[in-house]
Amino acid sequence: MAKRGMLIVLSGPSGVGKGTVRKALFNEPDVDFKYSISMTTRSPREGEVNGKDYFFVSKEEFEDHIKNGEMLEYAKYVDNYYGTPLNYVNKTLDEGHDVFLEIEVNGAMQVRANCPEAVFVFLTPPDLVVLKNRLIGRGTDDMDVIDKRIKTAVSEIKMMRNYDYAVLNDKVENAVDRIKTIVNSERLKVNRVMPDYLSMLGEED
Amino acid sequence: MAKRGMLIVLSGPSGVGKGTVRKALFNEPDVDFKYSISMTTRSPREGEVNGKDYFFVSKEEFEDHIKNGEMLEYAKYVDNYYGTPLNYVNKTLDEGHDVFLEIEVNGAMQVRANCPEAVFVFLTPPDLVVLKNRLIGRGTDDMDVIDKRIKTAVSEIKMMRNYDYAVLNDKVENAVDRIKTIVNSERLKVNRVMPDYLSMLGEED
Repeated sequence: MAKRGMLIVLSGPSGVGKGTVRKALFNEPDVDFKYSISMTTRSPREGEVNGKDYFFVSKEEFEDHIKNGEMLEYAKYVDNYYGTPLNYVNKTLDEGHDVFLEIEVNGAMQVRANCPEAVFVFLTPPDLVVLKNRLIGRGTDDMDVIDKRIKTAVSEIKMMRNYDYAVLNDKVENAVDRIKTIVNSERLKVNRVMPDYLSMLGEED
Repeated sequence: MAKRGMLIVLSGPSGVGKGTVRKALFNEPDVDFKYSISMTTRSPREGEVNGKDYFFVSKEEFEDHIKNGEMLEYAKYVDNYYGTPLNYVNKTLDEGHDVFLEIEVNGAMQVRANCPEAVFVFLTPPDLVVLKNRLIGRGTDDMDVIDKRIKTAVSEIKMMRNYDYAVLNDKVENAVDRIKTIVNSERLKVNRVMPDYLSMLGEED
């Protein structure tokens, strides 16, 4: 049986650029971990592809998954469900691959409760002014929604203390480099490699 | 007052190449942490320089330092003292610089007891056969000493579980890259950067 893979969770405030960073990360030639596609009930934005950016499902389908215990985490956010189907994650980890999740902060805390051994990375905006400008720049939400999100972001920054690492998203390529550094470093953690060394010495843990 | 620096401890079995890796690391142009020179009562090997490789002192001088509480850690190893003078480490950390120690395993455990927030890296030989060959290749010890060190190394490998990271010394340049990755990743740890973010938001921790 392969050594179980590592679960990497990227989260952060709404509008911080999680999706952009995740896409750039998976365009890197040396990234060998697997992306777990989230499921959502929100409508696709322009250019988003079902089964690639998200699994876009109906509210009823999503609630069936919850009822059947088939979600690793889920959250309702601005009237829509977002979540991670459990089956793909478990199967891929069992095969020995590392799995990468890009999820909302509420969901990340559920993963923390269920999988404390996962690596939790919090993506942060350079500052809240930039966050506000980015949300306005996106042009898909009205001002009330934006104000509500700003307030949420302040409390979300404080949620950083529930994460292992904070990655500043000043530039997408910097954020990508930092995440790769974290993953490469975590792969050298003693609790991950100790079993390999002991078996090399013919010893059991 | 500057944010206190991070203490990085490199240790590992005798003969694994700690000194070689440390020297190569400090030849890298982008390494900005400070090396804390150890103190020892053993004789200089060929090419070793007092005040650069070690502070070479007499047994009496070393024991005076111990008595006066001026050692962060020390150990007696093959009839000689090795240790880290406390003063330089504290002063440099207080100035906000990261400090790098390359020390023996007994000393590392004393640092762990005194500074649990430090980062502990264990350098490992590719395997014990290679370790044996390296010790013989060094040509400064007789076979009894070598056998004693091999036995020690087996128990030292098991000490790995007291460290945060294991770095394989298959090639010096690989080991150097791995240590740089670990340090860069540790600098993104939430407990190290949280105070900066809170002050950016005008909040106190």
